[in-house]
Amino acid sequence: MLPTALQFSHQLLKEIIQPGDHVIDATMGNGYDTTFLAEQVGEKGNVYAFDIQFQAISATLEKLSHQNLTSRVTLIQNGHEHLGEYLGKSEKIQAAIFNLGYLPKSDKHIITQPETTIQALDALCPHLAKGGRILLVSYYGHEGGYEELQRLEEYCQGLPQENFQVLTYRFINQKNQPPILFCIEKKA
Amino acid sequence: MLPTALQFSHQLLKEIIQPGDHVIDATMGNGYDTTFLAEQVGEKGNVYAFDIQFQAISATLEKLSHQNLTSRVTLIQNGHEHLGEYLGKSEKIQAAIFNLGYLPKSDKHIITQPETTIQALDALCPHLAKGGRILLVSYYGHEGGYEELQRLEEYCQGLPQENFQVLTYRFINQKNQPPILFCIEKKA
Repeated sequence: MLPTALQFSHQLLKEIIQPGDHVIDATMGNGYDTTFLAEQVGEKGNVYAFDIQFQAISATLEKLSHQNLTSRVTLIQNGHEHLGEYLGKSEKIQAAIFNLGYLPKSDKHIITQPETTIQALDALCPHLAKGGRILLVSYYGHEGGYEELQRLEEYCQGLPQENFQVLTYRFINQKNQPPILFCIEKKA
Repeated sequence: MLPTALQFSHQLLKEIIQPGDHVIDATMGNGYDTTFLAEQVGEKGNVYAFDIQFQAISATLEKLSHQNLTSRVTLIQNGHEHLGEYLGKSEKIQAAIFNLGYLPKSDKHIITQPETTIQALDALCPHLAKGGRILLVSYYGHEGGYEELQRLEEYCQGLPQENFQVLTYRFINQKNQPPILFCIEKKA
């Protein structure tokens, strides 16, 4: 069966992350992606994981310690729009993932905002390694979700094709608004 | 680097075609996909390949005979809208590929038409095996190309989600209108 947007996002990350890489989980949430990324970067890699909610930090820490992965992760209780403050001036990021909209199976009122998402992307793009990828999984079945999706799409369409290629992967005949995947890849 | 629409179409075909399968190249053109499909189905499989132009039949035949693959292919000089006439009543098709629009690197005046494409899809869908896939690679940088793309997209959006899932895979920040991929998968 065709992979879902979420499954495909992991496939696209796996293909390019090598042991020792620095990567970002911009929306920690339940820690699912943070754990996945920690497995990929190996013992010498580093995952920066962001969330404004203490709950997310706490749940993710528990998940990571169960799997003995805490030493590979920097947990940051702050919005992802501040990610630039945590990176070295010439530090290269191989990959990043954002789950946008609401966190599936949780409170639909706690949602990401297009302004801060775009600030985060602006801060991140200069740090992205050549051949590196930013994955954006956009859930938009909530109030304001469609506007966020449109802002995101416009931002992506505006990225210069000399430096980036931007892919979308979406299912178009489903009524339940499955998430849409964007992948920004920096050209080698 | 992210695979192009054409490369990804082959990846999606490879994943599901087994030796012995029956498959379709709906737009033979230069025979590139026909040859690829013939390799996938093995000695006991069959590729039905359609084109209205004698040139296409002739070029494809040459390509196939160089690789000793002619016995796996049925070359049909007819429009793909007639494909139903060549299939057994309960014959199952595992996969099909359509290159829509103009044939890259050739005469932009010889183009596919949305009416006949949709007739072909209507004829094909009932024959598609469970888990089978139809790949549509849409080139739309020619006169009438954008309208064809829209018709195709509407057709795909209208396929019932109980029986099908339809994926699009496209690059959105490129000025040279790279082809857009649609994949129609029949649910298992």
